[in-house]
Amino acid sequence: MVKLQQDRAVRTRETIIRGAAEVFDQYGFNGASISRIMKRAGVSQGAMYFHFKSKEDLARAVMNAQPDTVIPRLDSRGLQRIVDMTFVWAWQIQQDVLLRAGVRLTNEQEGTSVRDASPYQEWARILEITLRQAQEEGEVVASADVRQFSEFLVSACTGMQMYANAVSGRRDLPERVVAMWRILLPGVAAGRIAESIDLNPRRFV
Amino acid sequence: MVKLQQDRAVRTRETIIRGAAEVFDQYGFNGASISRIMKRAGVSQGAMYFHFKSKEDLARAVMNAQPDTVIPRLDSRGLQRIVDMTFVWAWQIQQDVLLRAGVRLTNEQEGTSVRDASPYQEWARILEITLRQAQEEGEVVASADVRQFSEFLVSACTGMQMYANAVSGRRDLPERVVAMWRILLPGVAAGRIAESIDLNPRRFV
Repeated sequence: MVKLQQDRAVRTRETIIRGAAEVFDQYGFNGASISRIMKRAGVSQGAMYFHFKSKEDLARAVMNAQPDTVIPRLDSRGLQRIVDMTFVWAWQIQQDVLLRAGVRLTNEQEGTSVRDASPYQEWARILEITLRQAQEEGEVVASADVRQFSEFLVSACTGMQMYANAVSGRRDLPERVVAMWRILLPGVAAGRIAESIDLNPRRFV
Repeated sequence: MVKLQQDRAVRTRETIIRGAAEVFDQYGFNGASISRIMKRAGVSQGAMYFHFKSKEDLARAVMNAQPDTVIPRLDSRGLQRIVDMTFVWAWQIQQDVLLRAGVRLTNEQEGTSVRDASPYQEWARILEITLRQAQEEGEVVASADVRQFSEFLVSACTGMQMYANAVSGRRDLPERVVAMWRILLPGVAAGRIAESIDLNPRRFV
């Protein structure tokens, strides 16, 4: 019985987060309101305030859900897994409102009352773990600073999606990701690993 | 006489753009108003509407003034000039309200009525011209696609300043730019050129 109630609470929370993502994606942080999100998610005021106390709380939950929209779709390892992470991300940002809203909120922070560096740092942490393992297994050059490289990857992807959004409504983002890897792989891939990396951005579609 | 009037018109326009930059830097696009900008710049309504018809016009002028805050400070050439462009930019964004407001407006477009990809494209064009010349002079590897590399540099710098803003209020941006060049130079610099590149981010301070 307690288990059933917990399941329902988890589902309600997810419903609210998805509703919030839809509203944030459409209106941005400043244009969104809790009442609009309640309506979109179809939940009562009681359910909303049980899970989230403020619009800032909701924004933080949406921003920090980004990795959940990407990581479960991966099945590769090593350097290919890093590449795939960026491919899946570039695809999902066009398909999944939860990821797109999370990215928008993360990048629009300066004009809002939300201040949270953790979405950047969490992506960097996930990349760093995989990169360090790839380095230990000899796929990444020993001289690479994997922490700096991970933070740089997050920065580059952040900027690429903004550039792509400005020039093509993000349609050319997958091609930009491929171009990035053609630039980065020669410096980071050890030995002849680069030749074995699949750079087809649609390998997950 | 006509010349004097023209000079005065140019100065008034610059005064307005700087006042607009200060207001946009502080309040963002949506929080700024023409009347506040007029007040900040100390110009009359007549002078304002002679130069700019709308807040969108003002935002576009500020966004597109970015290169003017960086390029005149450069005195190097070849690949060092590209590196220096990023160093001066990383320094100026902390010092010069015109550059900082231009960057903020460019990146905040999604939530506003301004749509203008030209600040990204103009930076890419400037980088591409210098990179192509460096490639012709043998400083950049022949296999590099200088157009893609230029657009990637703009993307990476855009994302780095957002990451740096979130984690350090941009204080660590120069160090992030150095880390980027340590990652990129091995793949793009021809022969032993990388060894002669000065990676001291304060060489222009």
